[in-house]
Amino acid sequence: MSTTFETWRGHFERLRAHKAFELTVITIIVLSALLIGAKTYEETGRFHQWLLVMDVAVTVFFLVEILIRIAAEKRLRDFFRQGWNIFDFLIVTASLIPLDDSEMVLLARLLRIFRVLRLVSMIPELRVLMAALVKSIPRMGYVALLMFIIFYIYAALGSFLFAEVDEGLWGNISISMLTLFRIATFEDWTDVMYATMELHAWSWIYYLTFIFLTAFIFLNMMIGIVLDVMQKESVQMEIESGEGEAAELHGLRHDVRSLRDQLDRMEVALGTRPGAAGVDRRDED
Amino acid sequence: MSTTFETWRGHFERLRAHKAFELTVITIIVLSALLIGAKTYEETGRFHQWLLVMDVAVTVFFLVEILIRIAAEKRLRDFFRQGWNIFDFLIVTASLIPLDDSEMVLLARLLRIFRVLRLVSMIPELRVLMAALVKSIPRMGYVALLMFIIFYIYAALGSFLFAEVDEGLWGNISISMLTLFRIATFEDWTDVMYATMELHAWSWIYYLTFIFLTAFIFLNMMIGIVLDVMQKESVQMEIESGEGEAAELHGLRHDVRSLRDQLDRMEVALGTRPGAAGVDRRDED
Amino acid sequence: MSTTFETWRGHFERLRAHKAFELTVITIIVLSALLIGAKTYEETGRFHQWLLVMDVAVTVFFLVEILIRIAAEKRLRDFFRQGWNIFDFLIVTASLIPLDDSEMVLLARLLRIFRVLRLVSMIPELRVLMAALVKSIPRMGYVALLMFIIFYIYAALGSFLFAEVDEGLWGNISISMLTLFRIATFEDWTDVMYATMELHAWSWIYYLTFIFLTAFIFLNMMIGIVLDVMQKESVQMEIESGEGEAAELHGLRHDVRSLRDQLDRMEVALGTRPGAAGVDRRDED
Amino acid sequence: MSTTFETWRGHFERLRAHKAFELTVITIIVLSALLIGAKTYEETGRFHQWLLVMDVAVTVFFLVEILIRIAAEKRLRDFFRQGWNIFDFLIVTASLIPLDDSEMVLLARLLRIFRVLRLVSMIPELRVLMAALVKSIPRMGYVALLMFIIFYIYAALGSFLFAEVDEGLWGNISISMLTLFRIATFEDWTDVMYATMELHAWSWIYYLTFIFLTAFIFLNMMIGIVLDVMQKESVQMEIESGEGEAAELHGLRHDVRSLRDQLDRMEVALGTRPGAAGVDRRDED
Repeated sequence: MSTTFETWRGHFERLRAHKAFELTVITIIVLSALLIGAKTYEETGRFHQWLLVMDVAVTVFFLVEILIRIAAEKRLRDFFRQGWNIFDFLIVTASLIPLDDSEMVLLARLLRIFRVLRLVSMIPELRVLMAALVKSIPRMGYVALLMFIIFYIYAALGSFLFAEVDEGLWGNISISMLTLFRIATFEDWTDVMYATMELHAWSWIYYLTFIFLTAFIFLNMMIGIVLDVMQKESVQMEIESGEGEAAELHGLRHDVRSLRDQLDRMEVALGTRPGAAGVDRRDED
Repeated sequence: MSTTFETWRGHFERLRAHKAFELTVITIIVLSALLIGAKTYEETGRFHQWLLVMDVAVTVFFLVEILIRIAAEKRLRDFFRQGWNIFDFLIVTASLIPLDDSEMVLLARLLRIFRVLRLVSMIPELRVLMAALVKSIPRMGYVALLMFIIFYIYAALGSFLFAEVDEGLWGNISISMLTLFRIATFEDWTDVMYATMELHAWSWIYYLTFIFLTAFIFLNMMIGIVLDVMQKESVQMEIESGEGEAAELHGLRHDVRSLRDQLDRMEVALGTRPGAAGVDRRDED
Repeated sequence: MSTTFETWRGHFERLRAHKAFELTVITIIVLSALLIGAKTYEETGRFHQWLLVMDVAVTVFFLVEILIRIAAEKRLRDFFRQGWNIFDFLIVTASLIPLDDSEMVLLARLLRIFRVLRLVSMIPELRVLMAALVKSIPRMGYVALLMFIIFYIYAALGSFLFAEVDEGLWGNISISMLTLFRIATFEDWTDVMYATMELHAWSWIYYLTFIFLTAFIFLNMMIGIVLDVMQKESVQMEIESGEGEAAELHGLRHDVRSLRDQLDRMEVALGTRPGAAGVDRRDED
Repeated sequence: MSTTFETWRGHFERLRAHKAFELTVITIIVLSALLIGAKTYEETGRFHQWLLVMDVAVTVFFLVEILIRIAAEKRLRDFFRQGWNIFDFLIVTASLIPLDDSEMVLLARLLRIFRVLRLVSMIPELRVLMAALVKSIPRMGYVALLMFIIFYIYAALGSFLFAEVDEGLWGNISISMLTLFRIATFEDWTDVMYATMELHAWSWIYYLTFIFLTAFIFLNMMIGIVLDVMQKESVQMEIESGEGEAAELHGLRHDVRSLRDQLDRMEVALGTRPGAAGVDRRDED
């Protein structure tokens, strides 16, 4: 039985590695994305039955595909060691919730949308891109914290000062933070300012300092990231380009020293070498 | 006859290469652009006849010009080998549709507008700029795909969740994508948010995550492009500046080795060379 | 008594340096921030008494903490030598104003908000970030002055030309500068323009030149800062990476010169050295 | 008389070069700017007479100052050789138009505003900044031309297609270009789009392609400028840092060659030199 299992595993492994298999999966993902898109059109009433059938077909296909990929592994846990596999597994199992059940239909629909994300796990270039994006998150960590502190302080100030002007914009600290985010995107921020300026004529200082602070920190963060990435790349490049030259220089110095050894021997033979030879060499290293 | 043809071809080739010819063409293109602009003014009624005559004149001029440039080539296919020539040829032949015919008049007008693009094909600096722009497109390819996936997922989510709030903004997946593009440009995005927040109080999460995601990916793409271009340029520069130094170092090492050969010969002559000469040389390369 | 004092100082110093002490302080700062946020919600009526008690507790904790940190110093003035300590001291003493007094309650509340800023003084990474931000301010000095001059001139022009159109937007030079800042953020700037274009048809020139000027200077400033920082970093890096190589080259040259000295001695011994030895050496340096 | 003239010229030259003179001029410029600002306030009625006196005083001061600076030059034309002097001269003479004349009062006021620009000509750092800004203009030339062509083509298209929708936005090619500039700044662009989409459902393509094109070209221009400036700076730096190393290497090679000459002489003396010495040296250069 173990041999039969091994034979089958070999079959699945070859199937999984096949280019056509990959292309089929990508095609089905795109198809499933189009299905989701189609469902958002109201006039799809008469295709309703057909769409349901298609959905079942896609779900079954994804299930079969993930089973093949699991069967191709030597041990089950090898499959779950890769982050993207867990991601695929969760998306596929989550979409097993049937679409026709009236209670869960919205949740089932929402979960099916995330099947489009499987494109990222299937196309290697997108996977590389995602890895680069994820790697750039920590660099932004402390700047984000600083930004949050500024938002929090301004939101608290705004709530205390402007709550009486407009409850819907400055009612409490959460609403104020949303309003401040709106101001940071310059979206109708003057309307907000003109409203508070009627009661508090000096409130433009609040808005201008906030805009300057956020813009200033954002700008510095962007410049910081550019410089950070660049520095790493150029250090890498320096090392690579510098290595050849350094090796060349090192070799050259070695050659020159072996010349000296040779000359030493000759001098000794000629009897011209002065006695205090050690002094002559103090600078050797 | 072949000689006559050759003589004429020579004439046309000299004409085409003449600076005055080029300047005349550019002047006529600018004139044709002004004609198009003039036609958008309503009060041009009494100049109508005059404008039509000018249009015919410009069309004929462009036709003659392209015929001269074709006649200046040794073989017809040489002309069509260059992308910009095909571009010019298409624009000129397309504007042969007469302007006075009532049915095609709009199409004819639209096609005449693209004659302004001939400025790009006539001015070498603009051609270089265009080539650089086109070359930078593929670099954006996969980022654009990732952006599209995010837009698609959010549009599908938006259609399912907010369609009941505003059919005109979230009716189906295409309308939702347009709405999301509007949000990505920060254009009255809070109006859209406040409308959906009345029914779904937590929908601000949808907007904020979307804005952060798109801004984050856009920023990373920009930084990526800057670094990509810079790295290529600096590698180029390293090679150029490094070459001189590497050659100098290489020459130096050669000199030092020829010194050793000379010393070897001298040692042999002096009879001071130790027997195990090979050992002494193990580090030579 | 002096010994007792010293013993206590040692206790406080060890306490201050303890990781748990630092974490406790950060926790209390976050708690105090949450307290401030909680007060902005209206439905906190029944927790009112509890919030006041908490506030007193936090205020007392901060007071004790700062006293411990002062007591840990050898001399009082050592404590006030560090900018961040003065900052902490001011914030803590300012929040000693009681919250229940009806007249000062708003001021007391506002001052309590700034206690959140103590997070910046407690977390070293944020302190580094702040130092970097502060350091980048002078670089922007003269550009800010130039920007201000442009704003001032346009505001004066706007007040003279458009005051009759809309007193609320162009009434005097301060209001005009606020309006221009609004235009620089692209916030409903066309509404402002369309209003003035009704009386002064050519006023679009005013807006377009202003937008181009500010955008142009802002862009140049950003590029300038990026280049400025980069140049400093790359000079730093050049020095670091260049040092190793330069030392290697210098050592190499020294080796070669000592070879020459050796050969000189050998030549003298062999009697082959030409008389005009000085001429041979003119290129030595 | 010539000697008297020379003595006076010397006096004026020393005066002009005096730091206090410069500071006084800057103070008066700032004062004149404040005067202009003060005039924009309506409630300045009772200070009217006083403001007029101040204006005359400032105008006279500027006149005297420029006469001193002219008198300090050896020849009159030396003064007009510097761009900034011509700039100062024009601004000062232009503000000689009296403020109380009812017809020219607006022009006189406008011209007085530009006196603030004299700050730029007085502060050296601002002059350097301005020079840098002016130098960066040509780099943007062809990109600006390309941008203009795109605006022109889209404006012509817009006029032909959307004129019937809204005469005020798409009436003729100039109005359309202003509307397109508005769209490029994302200012209420969806309102414009939704209006045209009612008649031409596919007009969103027009707006999206326009936004992508302009954003794409703008981005490329920015990146291009950054790289252009950086490349120039780094070439400069390479040359500076490379020079020292190249000289060191060159000197080293020279040393090694003089060693060979010495060895040659020794070999000849020892009689060990092989006959075909020339062959041995073919690699010398």
